[in-house]
Amino acid sequence: MKHNFNAGPSVLPKEVFEEASQAVLNFRDTGLSILEIGHRTPLFQSVMDETISLTNELMHLDSDHFVLFLHGGATTQFFQVPMNLLDENETAAYLDCGVWGTKAIKEARVFGEVTIVASSKDKNYSYIPKGYRIAADAKFFHYTSNNTIEGTEMFEIPITNLPLVADMSSDILSREMDFNRFALIYAGAQKNIGAAGANLVVVRRDILGKVNRRLPGMMDYRQHIEAGSMLNTPPVFSIYVCLLTLRWLKKQGGVPGIEKLNKAKADLLYKTLDSREGFEPTVAREDRSRMNVVFRIPEARLEKKFIDACEEQGMVGVKGHRSVGGFRISLYNAVAMESVKAISSLINDL
Amino acid sequence: MKHNFNAGPSVLPKEVFEEASQAVLNFRDTGLSILEIGHRTPLFQSVMDETISLTNELMHLDSDHFVLFLHGGATTQFFQVPMNLLDENETAAYLDCGVWGTKAIKEARVFGEVTIVASSKDKNYSYIPKGYRIAADAKFFHYTSNNTIEGTEMFEIPITNLPLVADMSSDILSREMDFNRFALIYAGAQKNIGAAGANLVVVRRDILGKVNRRLPGMMDYRQHIEAGSMLNTPPVFSIYVCLLTLRWLKKQGGVPGIEKLNKAKADLLYKTLDSREGFEPTVAREDRSRMNVVFRIPEARLEKKFIDACEEQGMVGVKGHRSVGGFRISLYNAVAMESVKAISSLINDL
Repeated sequence: MKHNFNAGPSVLPKEVFEEASQAVLNFRDTGLSILEIGHRTPLFQSVMDETISLTNELMHLDSDHFVLFLHGGATTQFFQVPMNLLDENETAAYLDCGVWGTKAIKEARVFGEVTIVASSKDKNYSYIPKGYRIAADAKFFHYTSNNTIEGTEMFEIPITNLPLVADMSSDILSREMDFNRFALIYAGAQKNIGAAGANLVVVRRDILGKVNRRLPGMMDYRQHIEAGSMLNTPPVFSIYVCLLTLRWLKKQGGVPGIEKLNKAKADLLYKTLDSREGFEPTVAREDRSRMNVVFRIPEARLEKKFIDACEEQGMVGVKGHRSVGGFRISLYNAVAMESVKAISSLINDL
Repeated sequence: MKHNFNAGPSVLPKEVFEEASQAVLNFRDTGLSILEIGHRTPLFQSVMDETISLTNELMHLDSDHFVLFLHGGATTQFFQVPMNLLDENETAAYLDCGVWGTKAIKEARVFGEVTIVASSKDKNYSYIPKGYRIAADAKFFHYTSNNTIEGTEMFEIPITNLPLVADMSSDILSREMDFNRFALIYAGAQKNIGAAGANLVVVRRDILGKVNRRLPGMMDYRQHIEAGSMLNTPPVFSIYVCLLTLRWLKKQGGVPGIEKLNKAKADLLYKTLDSREGFEPTVAREDRSRMNVVFRIPEARLEKKFIDACEEQGMVGVKGHRSVGGFRISLYNAVAMESVKAISSLINDL
């Protein structure tokens, strides 16, 4: 048996794999594959409708917020957000907490000005800055709620009167949050929501339509809202996998249910790492991510032993991101407690 | 048994469904689903590499042309093309042959000027204009090689010194063409290439980098070339389905092999429609698409008989596009001759 700790694309519930596999052969007893059904058929319309309504339900969204499932991943949103929200002569406030935030800032600068309100670059992004001030005249405030690569997570939603925009790619639906406080949320699907190739966007209608530039249709959130995420052929299969994953999440007690499990998983693993000599978590304690546990093993012989043991015992995806090195164990929603116990035992037994 | 004539997403070879379904459970005996493997692993890198090299091989591309597999569909390319190729004060030449071309023109106008060199709008896009002149000072010439909705296909590549750009979403790899004559080709995957959510772009390197505007990273073809279509997490599963479909195509004798079959399929169906009283193909004979056969049944009783018989005999997707009505039978690469014979018999026996 494999234990998959990939950072994304990452493990999904076993029943999702089984149902998705079946749908590729024969979708809902139609005798057709999910890959060959028209997206304008009632058959797929029902998939899209349920995916959107389940997202609404699980996030407890109010009627000002619209759920979209779009092509691409968060990297597309890095530029689509400022393209829709920021004019050339305007300034957006960004928090700089890691590789992904830095990329988002770079793309925003294509469309307008960016003020970096705070950064943790001084310590290799190993903590979340606190006590910063957000300029009141910025157009919006953007942050990354969980830094997949560096292993930090921001548990407090910042207090500001500005429209809040967040990249939640790697911790969406993993813990309770007042999602209605956000003007715009985006998240690539391939971690907690479903399969790569789809992207969730939640947007409050009133922030749209305020920039002067002309938008291509596919970049205009308003057009996607009107078209119910069907402005063009959607990534059909990826969205179906999202639906299956969201249904599974609901059965786990929704977000509160999975949060309880995610806490227990992260607590166990950090406890193991803290107590095992030679293993060094790299992140400030209060900012440790529950989704991505990042650590180093400075001693080369122990490091090799760990790598070999992982290989031997079917532990997949423990290598750190190519940009930071070390190790990373990702504990997304679908990672079972059983897998966390297995790797904790492995560490203890080394 | 179902006969699927969907216009897209559309039928794929049975063996593709079977292998794709298996990969969702257990990809290449790794014990992991294709949905949970990291895109930066050698495992997925080999999928991407083979997909790109097979495309190169099947299209006989020279070394100036680069193959990209991107997120989104052709609708994204409608704006990404002019964003990369057309400055505000420049003009591009477009041929207006249907709904999709019209959408492409609209998006190009967000970025620069457009001259429509010819249009078949006067007769509901039921033919392909000929004998038009393309202004020599335009930046590029854009056309749609097959009009999915209207059922026309352009069998001649226009003669021009301008860089040629074509939307080949619905006839790519269905017939031999000198693909090297094009500066840029794009095609949504969900018809002849694979599954919805991926998009093929073939681009000649030297036409890039000539506009003044700043491009977001995800919109810059040059960055995708450098990153080998892995600038961000790609639509993993959709690309894998493309790979399986391309492998199947190669086994059919590649493009020449499938073209022979596609000709025979289209010939049989048009012959059936032409000889059967009450069925009226809507397109000028010389411009009839081999991919999308569009026709009307003016007599209401006969129309109903046809619809009922299709329903009864498992013929799926014969309804015309919502914008034009009537009927459309799509005959993409993976539609078997058996299915064409079945619907021809159905028509003859009505």
